[in-house]
Amino acid sequence: MSRTLQLDAGGRLRHFLTIEGLGRDWLERIMDTAESFESVAAQKVKKVPLLRGKTVVNLFFETSTRTRTTFELAAKRLSADVLNINVAVSATAKGESLLDTVRNLEAMGVDMFVVRHAESGAAHFIARHVAPHVSVVNAGDGRHAHPTQAMLDMFTIRRHKRDFSRLTVAIVGDILHSRVARSQIHALNTLGAREVRVVAPRTLLPVAVERLGVRVCHDLDAGLEDVDVVIMLRLQKERMQGALLPSEREFYRCFGLTAARLRQARPDCLVMHPGPINRGVEIASEVADGSRSVILEQVGHGIAIRMAVMALALGAVQG
Amino acid sequence: MSRTLQLDAGGRLRHFLTIEGLGRDWLERIMDTAESFESVAAQKVKKVPLLRGKTVVNLFFETSTRTRTTFELAAKRLSADVLNINVAVSATAKGESLLDTVRNLEAMGVDMFVVRHAESGAAHFIARHVAPHVSVVNAGDGRHAHPTQAMLDMFTIRRHKRDFSRLTVAIVGDILHSRVARSQIHALNTLGAREVRVVAPRTLLPVAVERLGVRVCHDLDAGLEDVDVVIMLRLQKERMQGALLPSEREFYRCFGLTAARLRQARPDCLVMHPGPINRGVEIASEVADGSRSVILEQVGHGIAIRMAVMALALGAVQG
Amino acid sequence: MSRTLQLDAGGRLRHFLTIEGLGRDWLERIMDTAESFESVAAQKVKKVPLLRGKTVVNLFFETSTRTRTTFELAAKRLSADVLNINVAVSATAKGESLLDTVRNLEAMGVDMFVVRHAESGAAHFIARHVAPHVSVVNAGDGRHAHPTQAMLDMFTIRRHKRDFSRLTVAIVGDILHSRVARSQIHALNTLGAREVRVVAPRTLLPVAVERLGVRVCHDLDAGLEDVDVVIMLRLQKERMQGALLPSEREFYRCFGLTAARLRQARPDCLVMHPGPINRGVEIASEVADGSRSVILEQVGHGIAIRMAVMALALGAVQG
Repeated sequence: MSRTLQLDAGGRLRHFLTIEGLGRDWLERIMDTAESFESVAAQKVKKVPLLRGKTVVNLFFETSTRTRTTFELAAKRLSADVLNINVAVSATAKGESLLDTVRNLEAMGVDMFVVRHAESGAAHFIARHVAPHVSVVNAGDGRHAHPTQAMLDMFTIRRHKRDFSRLTVAIVGDILHSRVARSQIHALNTLGAREVRVVAPRTLLPVAVERLGVRVCHDLDAGLEDVDVVIMLRLQKERMQGALLPSEREFYRCFGLTAARLRQARPDCLVMHPGPINRGVEIASEVADGSRSVILEQVGHGIAIRMAVMALALGAVQG
Repeated sequence: MSRTLQLDAGGRLRHFLTIEGLGRDWLERIMDTAESFESVAAQKVKKVPLLRGKTVVNLFFETSTRTRTTFELAAKRLSADVLNINVAVSATAKGESLLDTVRNLEAMGVDMFVVRHAESGAAHFIARHVAPHVSVVNAGDGRHAHPTQAMLDMFTIRRHKRDFSRLTVAIVGDILHSRVARSQIHALNTLGAREVRVVAPRTLLPVAVERLGVRVCHDLDAGLEDVDVVIMLRLQKERMQGALLPSEREFYRCFGLTAARLRQARPDCLVMHPGPINRGVEIASEVADGSRSVILEQVGHGIAIRMAVMALALGAVQG
Repeated sequence: MSRTLQLDAGGRLRHFLTIEGLGRDWLERIMDTAESFESVAAQKVKKVPLLRGKTVVNLFFETSTRTRTTFELAAKRLSADVLNINVAVSATAKGESLLDTVRNLEAMGVDMFVVRHAESGAAHFIARHVAPHVSVVNAGDGRHAHPTQAMLDMFTIRRHKRDFSRLTVAIVGDILHSRVARSQIHALNTLGAREVRVVAPRTLLPVAVERLGVRVCHDLDAGLEDVDVVIMLRLQKERMQGALLPSEREFYRCFGLTAARLRQARPDCLVMHPGPINRGVEIASEVADGSRSVILEQVGHGIAIRMAVMALALGAVQG
């Protein structure tokens, strides 16, 4: 279903909502396109005219300056006009329904919605209802998916490791609440990673997580053994107030990535994190800033990936 | 007075503050100009360079993401630079007077203020005090006027009905608090509509509303009889808390537009609404989304009308 | 130290953080460059392509719509892309450190940070840690400095008076809390002003203010005697609630600039104020709006000065 929603009748990418159902060909096509945009950031004039005269709306029902900024920058580097709409303070306060908001913006002739929403499925819902010429990109929906984040992670891994079939990747931390983890697991499996491990206490794992195609570990040392890539997840501080976790200190002691812990991994292991990092909560500063960390590199690739997704979905480049 | 304030010595449009005093020639000129911009939205590159290097300031003393968005889009399609200033959170909090705020922005070399203010007359006040090279557009002031909204409504009607002299138009709902209704009444009478009716309970009508040149109805069925166009107004939910109205349900029963009610109107009657709509309060979903509804079309024409007003006021096109 | 931080190995301006240590040559170079940008505001198309494809981030840890607007306008007139980030509502709320925020934006390929922060030294701190290709401009840090404001003041004085060595300048008001005053004193002394006076009650003067190279007056009439320029400072209303000052009325009686008071100054004395002004608190309306006032002229020059600083720091013009 997601494939048919995301691709049009001619097999072109129209929406980018989730990794599921896209297939390895599309993930590679997105990464190849991003590769061609990497050089734009190095140019003196960091702009290409591919989306000139197009209007991209950042439709954020949940505040995320960081994610909004990456999409805004990506759109501007493609020469699009960008409208930032924070719906929490906007029309919904006046009782306008989600679809009425979308249809109104659509009627103004916008070309793309970048949607962030606290509820899973919001971007899909919008995608199912927009006019044929409008594209939707999911910038994070509830616990469900954050596909551009997963793609920039894959892109970063590919740049360093090339062949996914040889890789063991550990994803560590709050898997339960993480839309990023879900998207990463789908992407790694689609790209043929040898093994995907999730490392977390039982309270922070979804029910039947094994069905996603992962090996489960409850011990960090075992989970890191011989991995090629470790992806640390951000621990949402608000989880601490609930009964799921004893304390930050306790979490760090058991699941925090320190230099000592990292010795379990392969010597050339990449350390990744979607950011923003909590130093001393899920990761030690010496690791976050250390030689194996590619955390800031991920951020940079995030612009290229978002440019790629936008340009492909609006038909400005051939996938 | 409004005419002399809105037109310069050479008879060109300088400010756009109210429909009153502009005359039929100007309303038609604005619509003709908008007609030429309708095609821009259909182009691959939805931009014309008419206002390149001009700076438009959205000076909003009252939050309205929706209205701000339409002006921002219109300005960007004309290639202007746009500054969004929400004055509630800005200098006035530091005790700076309205005029000092305006004069400061003026000194920075801006070209146009799009003003939204909760008090009637705010845009006129600013227009009387700006430097000769600066234009002011009223984006809604108190209960007084919302002239670009009225013009996009006229434009929508003209596209469907052509000749105003044959039309009976009903405006239904909270006339008392509506700046939109006031501007629509002036525009319809200026354009020579055969009859303008207002349909509302006595508590939601201004004193002596007949003097504006309308027929008053307190019954929706009678009010809709043989009309060519029905314009539903948004019912501000906050009115409900006062003594003016019994309840939403009661209002809907008496003044809500349903498919059954609409049968009183002519078979080709247009259904209009300035948005955002309250489904089940002033209008039934089946009517809002039905075949006679041009509500979303209005939104699209709003961009063209705002482009026209901006381009005319800044002398980028000949009126 | 500030010189070495602000200039690169080749002696070019890289950051603009403070007037201290820059030297007369650089202050004059900035003013000369601003002179060349003054004409841009008068052009039909108020844009030059000097920073096309560059990304300027307004990184504001303290809200200041006014200052943010001037930098945004200046950047847009140079054709840069602008990102506005209000950090109070952004990632720091999620516990991300200042440097992580900066490094993330840096990784996205931005070229310049315009930094506003309530703590003295914040812009220096960021400048010491950014990547080699990134520039930092201080848009006000705590009580420390506001160098672009001081430069636009110097530029305004130079346009009217030409030769600083003949000038006596009085700075009047809350010197203690003013970052503007500190930067002005440094700039005036660097440019060789004959005499810089500070005029304030003892409670609003920093300890040992004489060491900055100023003459201290506690009496306004004496302080204004034969001055060529008087710069009034804004009285922060929140100071009134403390023990530093008896009342607004009392302050105005002793230190408010009225037409009568101004007679102590030279007949061609300029009246300046960084804005926003408090009418009837530190300055009478008749003086603020009078013939000697250049307050609004300062605002206009502020755009040219900020364009100059941005273009110099990013190497788009030769200093």
